Amino acid sequence: MTNSSYERLETIFERVAHLANGERNLSWDRRTLMPPGSGETRAKVVSTLRTIANETLCSPQVRELLDAAEAGGIANLNPWQAANLREMRRLWRHVTAVPIPLQSAIAELAGPTESAWQCARRDNDFQSFIGPLRAYLELQIEASRIRGEVLGIAPYDALLGAHEPGMRTATIDPLFDDLAGFLPDLVQRVTEKQSRVPRPIPLEDPFPEPQQFELSRSLATLVGFDFEHGRLDKSAHPYTSTVPGDVRITTRFRLDDVREGITATIHESGHAMYEAGLPYDWRFQPVGLARGGALHESQALLFEMQASRSTPFIQHLAKLLREAFGRQGVAWTDSNVLRTYRRVAPGFSRIEADEVTYPLHILLRYRVERRLVEGSLDVADIPDAWNATSKELLGIVPPTHALGCLQDPHWTIGYLGYFPVYTLGALIAAQFFAAAKRAEPELMAALARGDFSPLLRWTRCHVHGLASLAATGEELIMQSTGEALSTGALKEHLVARYLEE
Amino acid sequence: MTNSSYERLETIFERVAHLANGERNLSWDRRTLMPPGSGETRAKVVSTLRTIANETLCSPQVRELLDAAEAGGIANLNPWQAANLREMRRLWRHVTAVPIPLQSAIAELAGPTESAWQCARRDNDFQSFIGPLRAYLELQIEASRIRGEVLGIAPYDALLGAHEPGMRTATIDPLFDDLAGFLPDLVQRVTEKQSRVPRPIPLEDPFPEPQQFELSRSLATLVGFDFEHGRLDKSAHPYTSTVPGDVRITTRFRLDDVREGITATIHESGHAMYEAGLPYDWRFQPVGLARGGALHESQALLFEMQASRSTPFIQHLAKLLREAFGRQGVAWTDSNVLRTYRRVAPGFSRIEADEVTYPLHILLRYRVERRLVEGSLDVADIPDAWNATSKELLGIVPPTHALGCLQDPHWTIGYLGYFPVYTLGALIAAQFFAAAKRAEPELMAALARGDFSPLLRWTRCHVHGLASLAATGEELIMQSTGEALSTGALKEHLVARYLEE
Repeated sequence: MTNSSYERLETIFERVAHLANGERNLSWDRRTLMPPGSGETRAKVVSTLRTIANETLCSPQVRELLDAAEAGGIANLNPWQAANLREMRRLWRHVTAVPIPLQSAIAELAGPTESAWQCARRDNDFQSFIGPLRAYLELQIEASRIRGEVLGIAPYDALLGAHEPGMRTATIDPLFDDLAGFLPDLVQRVTEKQSRVPRPIPLEDPFPEPQQFELSRSLATLVGFDFEHGRLDKSAHPYTSTVPGDVRITTRFRLDDVREGITATIHESGHAMYEAGLPYDWRFQPVGLARGGALHESQALLFEMQASRSTPFIQHLAKLLREAFGRQGVAWTDSNVLRTYRRVAPGFSRIEADEVTYPLHILLRYRVERRLVEGSLDVADIPDAWNATSKELLGIVPPTHALGCLQDPHWTIGYLGYFPVYTLGALIAAQFFAAAKRAEPELMAALARGDFSPLLRWTRCHVHGLASLAATGEELIMQSTGEALSTGALKEHLVARYLEE
Repeated sequence: MTNSSYERLETIFERVAHLANGERNLSWDRRTLMPPGSGETRAKVVSTLRTIANETLCSPQVRELLDAAEAGGIANLNPWQAANLREMRRLWRHVTAVPIPLQSAIAELAGPTESAWQCARRDNDFQSFIGPLRAYLELQIEASRIRGEVLGIAPYDALLGAHEPGMRTATIDPLFDDLAGFLPDLVQRVTEKQSRVPRPIPLEDPFPEPQQFELSRSLATLVGFDFEHGRLDKSAHPYTSTVPGDVRITTRFRLDDVREGITATIHESGHAMYEAGLPYDWRFQPVGLARGGALHESQALLFEMQASRSTPFIQHLAKLLREAFGRQGVAWTDSNVLRTYRRVAPGFSRIEADEVTYPLHILLRYRVERRLVEGSLDVADIPDAWNATSKELLGIVPPTHALGCLQDPHWTIGYLGYFPVYTLGALIAAQFFAAAKRAEPELMAALARGDFSPLLRWTRCHVHGLASLAATGEELIMQSTGEALSTGALKEHLVARYLEE
């Protein structure tokens, strides 16, 4: 049983999904292979698709259908339909809160601002980037202010909630404060412990790109990536394009460090598995989407950090590395490769950061972007704020903007308010990995053979297949692990792996 | 001066252009690199974009605005605006003639039917292709019947007119009958002449793909292709993706015959130059589009056949070939390469056909598809009809369906009624080349240096830059050459190149 208003909503939201999927494929094209001079036309296409989707959702008809569906027959809906209706309302509230012209203006600036960032990073030139970034951020902050007013929450919470439904700074702050108190001390203890053992011997470069590409394809396949319904390519910043049945991941390679490509590929493969595991029947409806940014990051980190940096998998990886590059000798032993991966040291790059210092990179960005949104920091002063906070949290100051505040694309691609999601994802990944190990006793032994399937089986069942059936990520975590979101599992994991192992 | 109804129409038609450009980029992706299992989602996206564009054009508002703009103020429009309004009305008539559900059904079947064709051709399996092809053609023929009724023309003319505005079988038939009378005799005279000189020595294969790709990039650059606003890739069937500022051509390579890639690349580069030369100010309006299929093919053939198979250019090409593949010896002399390119012999493949027999391939397809549209040929009987007509016109019968009726994608990608356009294009190309040589006396000498710029200068000025300012291709030809569309120039050209040179 169902009700006819609900059914008509499904048709409308499916159209919106098709428009969003078209936009995602076009954005993938822009990031991987679009000719350099084609940005203007592309920006207009993407802005048009976004505008039409928004116009569709903002039509009076949708408001009436939502009211009628909610009033008329939630009792007649099955749990997935009821959750879908809830997600429709949530999406509708999110979109209708902001006037369409403002949304279109944001969509139209997205591509050009990202291009400006690419140039600024390449040229280490923050000065010329101030104008484009300020123009784009001002629109986003204005939208967050309006949306916050409608939803009765602070602007930053409105941004955060767009990526992680229901999440608030009030939830994040105690968790992050706990980490800010815990991590610097842990970093010190780990580096002290490291100083008593030999430094890892560097893996001799260069690592030719064809072999790295082949290794990345193998690793993605090990994780479970399906090349019949996806691609692996290169782009300046690795990411996952999330279209049902067409999940594309990108990676990047350094000739002098093989770990960058491996890390990026496994990370994005984790994202891709979430998308590929979403329920087919709901793939074009809001309830069929991933539950939120933090859960999405948790899936990436579950594979990248929890599983593929475990001792059993690193030993398997060492073998793969020796085979892929035809190397042998003292640098290529299991134990040296493991030491290479376990090295903890504060650095400038978030992407290249080790597992222990990574959350400190996020705390840095969270503090800077909150001040930007709250109006206490001007765009021109980002470098100073960045460097001061880096000094405070990581003890180091980046020597260039390219290695500092220009390293990430997030603020130029509509991901303002997204950074906390990475560390929330790390907390959740630790909770999930502990739960998966309890439920699948052979999980670690399988990883020693390069076999991710027990882990994938657990997370498909307890995370992927549930899509957005639960109202929030926190609710899903409680259902899947029996525990609330907390810092406990991550802290235990880091102590075990870096101090006790 | 202008009028406000017209201005509002420009805004609406610009949105439709953005949707069409998005669709074109997504179709390019599907044909070059989409994962094999992703067709279902992609078909839904493309169908949605097409449906929204059609809904937009079919809204009562557009009808009212067109009426008001035409009634209110054509006198206030400049010639480009007036032509744009005329093109808007033409496009509107074309789209509104067919019910949206039927259009959507056609759009949704396009991708899957093309995929079915790819499998059928690969497996030489016409039998299993009958079902998908029949379903798709029935929808297209039904649409042509409806459109023909509305426009007061025959169904085949409605199909033809979609590709070449204003063109009718009544115009084509005398031209094609003339060629059907002329060409078989010419083929016989040319082959007799050839039998009295040594056969060309085959260019020794293999031709490694990386060098072929590099050569194709060089040739495209010679023609004038701009890689800042375009790409060159591979696909099963070479084609040009026509998005303003983002023109992408595809080619294909044979390891055993270097000419296939060269021919395809120069042909598609010719198409690309037309797109790249359209007026920037009108790039998102109907009047800014190319004038029609026949003119588009004329631009491809102007570069591929008229210019790049001329004796001066072939001599330059022979040098490029020797350099690209590091070859020398008797097969690689200018005169042998020229003989290779001048060889005339009836064959099975349209794409690989020589300049003299090519129109006979078109006559074959024209006869078959007219019978399909007029209802006197069933899809299941295509192979028999194909083979019989091939015997009659070319004197040969293809040994397999893959080499016969399955060789072309046109009927599976919405290009029913398109084939005549190739031969119309050949007629026009001959007329244009003759006119360009008169206007640019140094044209042939430049080709001897690999310099296409005098030819490009002429056609940019007399064809590309005019877009759809003239109401029909025939009108543009008259303006640019002072002559009506005719077979004379092509016949003279073929006699001169193949019998007299």
